[in-house]
Amino acid sequence: MKRLKLIALFLFSALTLQVSAQQKKYAMVIHGGAGTILKKNMSPEMEAAYIAVLTQALQAGYAQIKAGKTSMDAVEATIHVMENDPHFNAGKGAVFTHDGKNELDAAIMDGKTLMAGSVAGVTTIKNPISAARAVMEKSEHVMMVGAGAEQFAKEVGLEIVDPKYFWTKERWNGLQKAIKEDSTKAVLDHGSKKSELLGSKNHDYKFGTVGCVALDKAGNLAAGTSTGGMTNKKYGRVGDAPIIGAGTYCNNETAGISCTGWGEFYIRNVVAKTISDLMEYKSLSVAEASKIVLDKVGKMGGDGGLIALDKNGNVAMPFNTEGMYRGTITTDGKIEVSIYK
Amino acid sequence: MKRLKLIALFLFSALTLQVSAQQKKYAMVIHGGAGTILKKNMSPEMEAAYIAVLTQALQAGYAQIKAGKTSMDAVEATIHVMENDPHFNAGKGAVFTHDGKNELDAAIMDGKTLMAGSVAGVTTIKNPISAARAVMEKSEHVMMVGAGAEQFAKEVGLEIVDPKYFWTKERWNGLQKAIKEDSTKAVLDHGSKKSELLGSKNHDYKFGTVGCVALDKAGNLAAGTSTGGMTNKKYGRVGDAPIIGAGTYCNNETAGISCTGWGEFYIRNVVAKTISDLMEYKSLSVAEASKIVLDKVGKMGGDGGLIALDKNGNVAMPFNTEGMYRGTITTDGKIEVSIYK
Repeated sequence: MKRLKLIALFLFSALTLQVSAQQKKYAMVIHGGAGTILKKNMSPEMEAAYIAVLTQALQAGYAQIKAGKTSMDAVEATIHVMENDPHFNAGKGAVFTHDGKNELDAAIMDGKTLMAGSVAGVTTIKNPISAARAVMEKSEHVMMVGAGAEQFAKEVGLEIVDPKYFWTKERWNGLQKAIKEDSTKAVLDHGSKKSELLGSKNHDYKFGTVGCVALDKAGNLAAGTSTGGMTNKKYGRVGDAPIIGAGTYCNNETAGISCTGWGEFYIRNVVAKTISDLMEYKSLSVAEASKIVLDKVGKMGGDGGLIALDKNGNVAMPFNTEGMYRGTITTDGKIEVSIYK
Repeated sequence: MKRLKLIALFLFSALTLQVSAQQKKYAMVIHGGAGTILKKNMSPEMEAAYIAVLTQALQAGYAQIKAGKTSMDAVEATIHVMENDPHFNAGKGAVFTHDGKNELDAAIMDGKTLMAGSVAGVTTIKNPISAARAVMEKSEHVMMVGAGAEQFAKEVGLEIVDPKYFWTKERWNGLQKAIKEDSTKAVLDHGSKKSELLGSKNHDYKFGTVGCVALDKAGNLAAGTSTGGMTNKKYGRVGDAPIIGAGTYCNNETAGISCTGWGEFYIRNVVAKTISDLMEYKSLSVAEASKIVLDKVGKMGGDGGLIALDKNGNVAMPFNTEGMYRGTITTDGKIEVSIYK
């Protein structure tokens, strides 16, 4: 009798677990950047604005999936919302380079075919994520940079804007502040050339990248990332976002991953592909693999976060900063959005 | 007695194996590109010229190691020889873009610190591998592209040349041929825009990249790659060479890797880091790991080759093309250079 009870209990638990796993099956995960995001520094209006746009971004992608479109369509639709919203460091609202320009990077990857596309250092393409997708679908290349990438985007009919479109007052003020802080620092360094070459040391100038991973009804994953890079960046610096394997990677056999943070550390650790490899070669879960690689970044002195969604709809959203704008939507449409730890 | 003999035989075999392993401990491995390199198409003079410069490149790096310098110094010195020689598609001798320019890419990585540097789309830096090293050592960045990277190289005192320096007659003729073939193809495609966007379909226009991996006396690995990319390339295309994790990767715990071939497939497979991960997470040998990943590239339709050198001085040089310019030097200075299968 006792044994029967135990079996019944086991069956009940298994059933509960299965139901809870079903409830927790995620269709999409997004991030809007990691950094020193503290509740005490956030006005209620600002907080509400972030939550609203993160929700809207998730809804835009989910509508695609619900309509039977691909995860690629969902990723592109979601990132459009964030690129078009000035709150994020991607598309409109991108940070300024030292020369007062907005240089944008983006990448997208299809987990089914392992096809990928990316653009870096573009200044006239309204939605860089769509340019990345066009590179993937309409050229034989994976990566295009600068004026060449812009020319390509124009030829394939993407929306081209005057670079002024990307200008926002907040980011412009951010640049002025960064330049002032850096020049103060240079004086303190006795005018050594090195600090100038090293660029800004304020980590938070690096953050605000957006990203999305989606799993569609056919079981296909896609991942995308879009960013304006780093405030006051110089010398045509490119971060991890447009580097396949570093800031963006996707494979139906493992997971889709999009990173945000101090890009140089993400490139050196080839973060996104390493997470996928830990899943493939060590049979780790998406959460375990993500944690191990982010810990490596942290130990080296890098900070940031990432989102990952595996082929079974399990999600991971680790970060080692104060906060990360992030959100998920489950396959039954339940949205959760968070900002702080 | 029989048993004693067996033991003696075993000991003798073990000793022989050890000696042979010691003899086969490699200090450096290089490549000068993979492609349809057939003996029947090669004049004896051309063959001798390739063998001479590959030998000279190995000697230049080995001199650094012998003098107690680092593997980084060896990689840079070796790649300088190949960048300065017009036989290879790197530095002088680089192929031309569709617009008649030479746009160069390079990357370098230090296996001890996992520091890395890379440049892409540069047109005025005599030795792009040195620019990649400067990005690593003299900036806080990993990757710089275009005019920004050139500005940086100038500020740190690297040799800047007139873009005409890179012009060679053979490569110029190659561009004219590629343009002609592509325009013929476009007409055959009924003038569709697609073939124009897709670019050249002649695989051999993609090859000739150079690379080097070195292991110094302190047991530190370094890897570097330098290339002119693809003949007739358009739209600021960037290949795998300057992408850390794709065409170039190095880690003292595993191996240093430099790739050459159809770059897009190497980016999508994140080739170099995946080889390292197979060694780290599946305990595969450098040869096994290299073969698995190159086979993946081949199955997808990509071709090319790679060189890899592990922390114990074991080397792998697989390629799935007709030939690959390649060479090794053992720790006792023995040079081997090969071209064909």
